Amino acid sequence: VVRVGPGALRLLPGDLAARLPERDVVVVSDATVARLHGRALVLSLRAAGFRTRLLTFPAGERSKTRTVKARLEDRLLALAVGRDAALVALGGGVTGDLAGFLASTWHRGVPVVQAPTTLLAMVDAAIGGKTGVNLPAAKNLVGTFHQPAAVYADVSVLSTLPRSEMASGFAEIVKIAAAADRSLFEWLESHAAELRRGNARALEHAIAAAIARKAAVVTRDERETGRRAILNLGHTVAHAVEAASGWRVGHGAAVALGLVAECRLATRATGFPASSASRVARLLEALGASLAWPRSLDPSRVAEAARHDKKNRRETIRCALPVALGRMPASSDPTVAIPEKDLRDAIRALLV
Amino acid sequence: VVRVGPGALRLLPGDLAARLPERDVVVVSDATVARLHGRALVLSLRAAGFRTRLLTFPAGERSKTRTVKARLEDRLLALAVGRDAALVALGGGVTGDLAGFLASTWHRGVPVVQAPTTLLAMVDAAIGGKTGVNLPAAKNLVGTFHQPAAVYADVSVLSTLPRSEMASGFAEIVKIAAAADRSLFEWLESHAAELRRGNARALEHAIAAAIARKAAVVTRDERETGRRAILNLGHTVAHAVEAASGWRVGHGAAVALGLVAECRLATRATGFPASSASRVARLLEALGASLAWPRSLDPSRVAEAARHDKKNRRETIRCALPVALGRMPASSDPTVAIPEKDLRDAIRALLV
Repeated sequence: VVRVGPGALRLLPGDLAARLPERDVVVVSDATVARLHGRALVLSLRAAGFRTRLLTFPAGERSKTRTVKARLEDRLLALAVGRDAALVALGGGVTGDLAGFLASTWHRGVPVVQAPTTLLAMVDAAIGGKTGVNLPAAKNLVGTFHQPAAVYADVSVLSTLPRSEMASGFAEIVKIAAAADRSLFEWLESHAAELRRGNARALEHAIAAAIARKAAVVTRDERETGRRAILNLGHTVAHAVEAASGWRVGHGAAVALGLVAECRLATRATGFPASSASRVARLLEALGASLAWPRSLDPSRVAEAARHDKKNRRETIRCALPVALGRMPASSDPTVAIPEKDLRDAIRALLV
Repeated sequence: VVRVGPGALRLLPGDLAARLPERDVVVVSDATVARLHGRALVLSLRAAGFRTRLLTFPAGERSKTRTVKARLEDRLLALAVGRDAALVALGGGVTGDLAGFLASTWHRGVPVVQAPTTLLAMVDAAIGGKTGVNLPAAKNLVGTFHQPAAVYADVSVLSTLPRSEMASGFAEIVKIAAAADRSLFEWLESHAAELRRGNARALEHAIAAAIARKAAVVTRDERETGRRAILNLGHTVAHAVEAASGWRVGHGAAVALGLVAECRLATRATGFPASSASRVARLLEALGASLAWPRSLDPSRVAEAARHDKKNRRETIRCALPVALGRMPASSDPTVAIPEKDLRDAIRALLV
């Protein structure tokens, strides 16, 4: 079940009662989101007849660790949460990844329901089943694939989201469109102003379309042996930007920079039209993304960090690059080997 | 691939070269097994052209923790082991469970090859894809299902195994036979003496038959939603014995006690013939199992521990019980609710 729209969260308890009626439910949330939305959800789950608990952890990417996961496991054990439980991940991407990983290994796997509360999580973390935690030196190095039992993208919770976080989510939607859905890309171009104003109906359409496209790609390649890699467009540079900044640059902002850099790389590597690369940059800006290079960020450290990317094989940097707007290479492996010099050039071009 | 027989381990490098040629290989082993068999395996893998590393951890159940897993992850990171690696779990059940869990979450899952070096691991941990670590208060509470890419049960490594460890393995084979394979059960009865003497040909037959039967059950129900539960015969009591003893009683010895107790329970609960229950006990003894109750073990603490079993639902103790030798209930859920008093009686009957 994927439900998108204002008030979607209110449908969660009823759906769950119909599908997993015998489950104990544990809502996992960071402290901030728990205060905003957690208690209401817990009360409605209890009203629907579920034995429900709320587990919280400190907000922020720094909680996405093995240590916090272990602490949550100790809490689950203390509450005698058995294999007949379901977890609800209520929050942003950190919560989705952490609670999804927690669910995937508790009693060797209990169902997780994703209830994302940020635009980025709605179109990214909540869809596709990737879970995980960070190691000190690298993101998402330890985790699982664990498909959610259901996803609730409640557009009404986005009204409290800061503008920079909305821009992060838009960057991810633009990525999906640029990689795999030209008609969505054009729809975004013509509705950028409404989206940026937070129009609920426009948001619902963009989120639902992005989720549907991502789910279609993921279903055909759950374990990322091939086609799923097209969703990594922009992410080689984005991950390097995040790592080189010590994760001070957020994921969405990094993806916006990564998209621009990798679309430029594509003009040389795959014949991606230069005019399309410009359209990607213009759409990102129209949706509120800042494409200014973060001052404190050393571009040569970014290139260095890209060499440690997960997509690499045998020390060669590989990027997933489009051949045209909404179209990635047709081969079963859509990644392209990139000379380190070209990558440095593309990163340096972001500085001007 | 499942290879059973003397010298099976020597086939591993060649098989791997044919199936996963581009992989880096990391052999994971406890310090004791590493000394006995690890270096030989590493050298043969290197001779077959693999970049190969050996990671070790202290021998014993106490290493099956989140902390040891995290330490191994830190080593994998330091060695820059990427997603294009395969792990080999070389050792007993602890190694299989720990290295299997490690492989299942490294880069969200890399292949694991199981190379069990104990009889118990050959017929139990290495087959079926269960992985995990213990929490202070409960075994295997955190883990995954991760099917091995291949299994190598090299009978020749068993010659150095202590007699008590062989008996543990035999208990698991008897369980599989009593639950799901009457003809194997009768074969074991007529070959008990050879097996106990360590005859390689007899061992090979028993291991191969047990693996094949277990694999057939598991394939139909990988995630243990139903039929796979028949393999839990004896394990409600066995886990409780282990927990109540503070894990001083080994898994195999606990399974032998559990089999006898639960077969007796079955005579009341499912109409399992009392004569069959006696045959199970006699076969276990013929294969070298000790059915004497461990002196220091408090039977009422065992009954208490059974209440925390994973198979329970809503505080009711559930056991997987046979209806006849080699036959479990035909229903999709083969577990039976057991009154706590009956369980106490069955445990007390072990004392005489």
